[in-house]
Amino acid sequence: MAASPSLILSRRDLDFLLFEWLDVTGLLDRPRFAEHSRHTFAAVLDLAEELATERFAPHNKKADATEPRIAPDGTVVLIEEIGQALQAFAKTGLMAATFDEQHGGMQLPTSVAKAVLAWFQAANVGTSAYPFLTMANANCLIEHGSAEQVATWVEPMLAGRFFGTMALSEPQAGSSLADITTRAEPQPDGTYRLFGNKMWISGGDHELSENIVHLVLAKVPGGPSGVKGISMFVVPKILLTDSGQLGERNDVVLAGLNHKMGYRATTNTLLNFGEGVHRPAGSPGAVGYLVGELHHGLSYMFSMMNEARIGVGLGATALGYTGYLHALDYARTRVQGRSVAGAGPVAIIEHPDVRRMLLAAKSYVEGALALGLYCAALVDEQATATSVLAREEAGLLLQVLTPIAKAWPSQWCLAANDLAIQIHGGYGYTRDYDVEQFYRDNRLNPIHEGTNGIQALDLLGRKVPMAGGAGLRLLLERVGRTIERATAGGDREDGGYAGYAAELQVAVDRIARTTATLLTCGDTALMLSNATAYLEAVGHTVIAWLWLDQVLSAGSESGAFYEGKRAAARYFYAWELPSVHAKLDLLDRLDRTLLDTPPEAC
Amino acid sequence: MAASPSLILSRRDLDFLLFEWLDVTGLLDRPRFAEHSRHTFAAVLDLAEELATERFAPHNKKADATEPRIAPDGTVVLIEEIGQALQAFAKTGLMAATFDEQHGGMQLPTSVAKAVLAWFQAANVGTSAYPFLTMANANCLIEHGSAEQVATWVEPMLAGRFFGTMALSEPQAGSSLADITTRAEPQPDGTYRLFGNKMWISGGDHELSENIVHLVLAKVPGGPSGVKGISMFVVPKILLTDSGQLGERNDVVLAGLNHKMGYRATTNTLLNFGEGVHRPAGSPGAVGYLVGELHHGLSYMFSMMNEARIGVGLGATALGYTGYLHALDYARTRVQGRSVAGAGPVAIIEHPDVRRMLLAAKSYVEGALALGLYCAALVDEQATATSVLAREEAGLLLQVLTPIAKAWPSQWCLAANDLAIQIHGGYGYTRDYDVEQFYRDNRLNPIHEGTNGIQALDLLGRKVPMAGGAGLRLLLERVGRTIERATAGGDREDGGYAGYAAELQVAVDRIARTTATLLTCGDTALMLSNATAYLEAVGHTVIAWLWLDQVLSAGSESGAFYEGKRAAARYFYAWELPSVHAKLDLLDRLDRTLLDTPPEAC
Repeated sequence: MAASPSLILSRRDLDFLLFEWLDVTGLLDRPRFAEHSRHTFAAVLDLAEELATERFAPHNKKADATEPRIAPDGTVVLIEEIGQALQAFAKTGLMAATFDEQHGGMQLPTSVAKAVLAWFQAANVGTSAYPFLTMANANCLIEHGSAEQVATWVEPMLAGRFFGTMALSEPQAGSSLADITTRAEPQPDGTYRLFGNKMWISGGDHELSENIVHLVLAKVPGGPSGVKGISMFVVPKILLTDSGQLGERNDVVLAGLNHKMGYRATTNTLLNFGEGVHRPAGSPGAVGYLVGELHHGLSYMFSMMNEARIGVGLGATALGYTGYLHALDYARTRVQGRSVAGAGPVAIIEHPDVRRMLLAAKSYVEGALALGLYCAALVDEQATATSVLAREEAGLLLQVLTPIAKAWPSQWCLAANDLAIQIHGGYGYTRDYDVEQFYRDNRLNPIHEGTNGIQALDLLGRKVPMAGGAGLRLLLERVGRTIERATAGGDREDGGYAGYAAELQVAVDRIARTTATLLTCGDTALMLSNATAYLEAVGHTVIAWLWLDQVLSAGSESGAFYEGKRAAARYFYAWELPSVHAKLDLLDRLDRTLLDTPPEAC
Repeated sequence: MAASPSLILSRRDLDFLLFEWLDVTGLLDRPRFAEHSRHTFAAVLDLAEELATERFAPHNKKADATEPRIAPDGTVVLIEEIGQALQAFAKTGLMAATFDEQHGGMQLPTSVAKAVLAWFQAANVGTSAYPFLTMANANCLIEHGSAEQVATWVEPMLAGRFFGTMALSEPQAGSSLADITTRAEPQPDGTYRLFGNKMWISGGDHELSENIVHLVLAKVPGGPSGVKGISMFVVPKILLTDSGQLGERNDVVLAGLNHKMGYRATTNTLLNFGEGVHRPAGSPGAVGYLVGELHHGLSYMFSMMNEARIGVGLGATALGYTGYLHALDYARTRVQGRSVAGAGPVAIIEHPDVRRMLLAAKSYVEGALALGLYCAALVDEQATATSVLAREEAGLLLQVLTPIAKAWPSQWCLAANDLAIQIHGGYGYTRDYDVEQFYRDNRLNPIHEGTNGIQALDLLGRKVPMAGGAGLRLLLERVGRTIERATAGGDREDGGYAGYAAELQVAVDRIARTTATLLTCGDTALMLSNATAYLEAVGHTVIAWLWLDQVLSAGSESGAFYEGKRAAARYFYAWELPSVHAKLDLLDRLDRTLLDTPPEAC
């Protein structure tokens, strides 16, 4: 490891969150993780930091400056460092970090694995997208595909020979999957032929792997309309021969690369299926293999989507985090201006407004990391907790937290990246520094995997009412437990935790009341029209809870690291939590502004 | 004019603000504007729209994609459309829009001129920066230079033959001008020779004009230390012969171009003065001519800086405004998803959350435009009002509003650009659409001409306490007048204006109390540590005031335009104004978080 602290992520914070706060070593008693130890967890974290630092971070700027392009022969040209980094990544076996041993996996807890993988997202989000998509694809196939499909497609993916994609959106259907028109025509041999266009497909074409495995949503003619008629298909770029060798080119072709504001190392593509450019076995149509049952495609995709959404939140967090660390380093070394008392010139961290920006960024990125790892720990709990109740509760909490875990970091860690630019002043606006790229990369996250507006509808329209409100109730109970601990601990001289607990209790009580008001208002359109205000109010309250929980966990430990945790919590309670009340006021009065305003007045 | 409404700016809104709200035709009675008429104002607005549409907007994306570069011969290469647009601009005489007739100016009111010039900022902020900097430079020389300097430098600038810059910052001194080290050594002939490096100099080098006139801050050896030892010099790129022809190359050279996130059409440079690359009259040192008196440079620069800050605010507004218009157009035409009632597919403007984003953007950009033009009207008032009292009051208001007019639009119109990306979804993240560039261009505005953190210190540390608090008192009185009119008008069936007036009154009363609390707390460092919260609270209140004033001015007029004004005001009072209270709470309790947190805990 480097002598000076990394500017990619904070290993100290990861260790705190995993070992001191979440106590992941408690998982070692469970059979799935029995082969592991605190030592193996640490070794994988070490490996990730080293590989991210040495192979991913160094080409992050170059990949941004050297956008993917299509060569005259139709292939995609990327800088060679991307492929080299990914081969090194594949060799470590990290592609299968959380997978079963039977698939060659490490059986790492998801909580540890997400911390491990965050190093790559923070070091180079564009390059890391390829294995991340591949892991999600493999996960989905293991869960819903046949044994043969797993053997055929998953094993080469986990070995890094094939990469995977998720192909949902179409040019006319992004957020609205009900309107997809790609069709899959059944063939006599049990396969399908697909015809249609897919838009925004990340990793949709490249020469980084021997093959690309697309998981494609399409409709079989004659099926139910809307989302109920969607099925999922494996559509490889290159078909395999009966003996499993690379064979004929499938009829799926790159129709264009999207030129993006950021995230440029990741190709983002328009793909044409079944336009007859290639004619497998002599006829047009992209050969596809049904995954699971007909018409269940959307639910399969969503089982993957929930984890993907937490992954997006963690990716946003990683980008925000590295931006914060860069800004902190700059603020400590850049000398400029005087203190109010006239001393100076001083390092800019001496200026209270620079500290405001740093503390805001710190409270966002460390709060978001806590949320992401908490959700990852819930995935572990859902899969391996010893009691049925604990597994069910973890599942419920995960459901209700997923839209927050996607939207909150993608809003506020982006804000952290914006603050990192501001802290750098004019230098932050130039490409000589790194922070403007982090901002541009992170700007994708509020958009993809369901825009933040969609997350708000998911939270208030689906997750909160589900199971008679059990998910939200459980969440507020968990918050209540933290409040109890904080209250029992009394107040500290420095302004302390009983005070935070009281403020958090007010927010929690209000959320419970406001939720009841909304759910009983009798007008779904009105209720949902302000869903974003609801998501933001609940999101800030959840992060305030996690900050209180973190400082309780820090106890009375001394030293800069723990003082930093306490300072960020103090900032969040002073500057951020109070903002929820204006939003709850708006929700309480069932504000009709958005619903009433006609389009012509917008 | 185009058949469909422009996506650059809204002429309808400009007409409303100028003629219905600010009543600029009332200025025609004043001698300075006697040659003008509503007709001449309209003609200049027409001209600006046409030229901005035909010559500035078309190369905006190309200039972004084709960054300035240095050719092997050391000259700067820009796309040719920039020079062509600027020659067309210079021919119109708009460079001298507000200048005296004696300098070839149009003597347009500043309010009208700012509306005229906003067309160019919205169409292509990078290209328009060259004449904007030139106008600011000329203005400063007219105010503080000698008659000879005006004749020598200003006239060619207003004719578009020479362009101007402001050269303040240095690599080690951005916000902190006290620390500049460029020195100016007096010569026997009354000229000076300058030695030093200037950083972030926009328009600092190019081949667009025959010559470049730098206004440079430097220190004469032996003068007072800090800001009191700063003097201002004219330093031309090319020296003039005695007969006024272009002569020898001065010893100021381009040392590098900054590669920026946006605003790319404008070269941004590091300039070296006096490194002996050129040797005017045989010796090294950049020849400079003192402007005004020795050691008064900073105050001269600040007389220009205040107008520059309002200009930055208007530039931010223009970029936010064009982003909003693009998003509105997209939201009306892009079909996606269903309404909550199940109808659809529908245009996305039918979704309440899209309307939230549009109304937010509209309330920001139209609110900011009102603020910018209100300040411009104060400039007119300060210069031409018939009573001394009116002129003094305009000056006071202008002083107190300047930091807000810079910071608020550069924060919230940037937020409007961010929303415009989000409304476009994935498409907004691509360079096939325009909105991501608007965001990148606008990201500069919270940084330059004094960061927003500096504006907060200026407001709370200087402008509010000045003249015994007279500026703020006057501002709050003006707000009070609007409240009175709104209250007298009673409440409207639709939830109306007496309600807004009451909410605004609460905010105004709180600001008065909070200000007293801060100014009497006896701890300047503590007071100023939360200056950003103060700036933001006062800023939102000022914009709420201008929204109430706008809807009062709209009266009971019907039609989409006026309904839009009412809808945006309703949004601002429902969603935005309430956010000030959490900030005022923090200020009221003299929150010590920022002051107390040591650097190691950030």
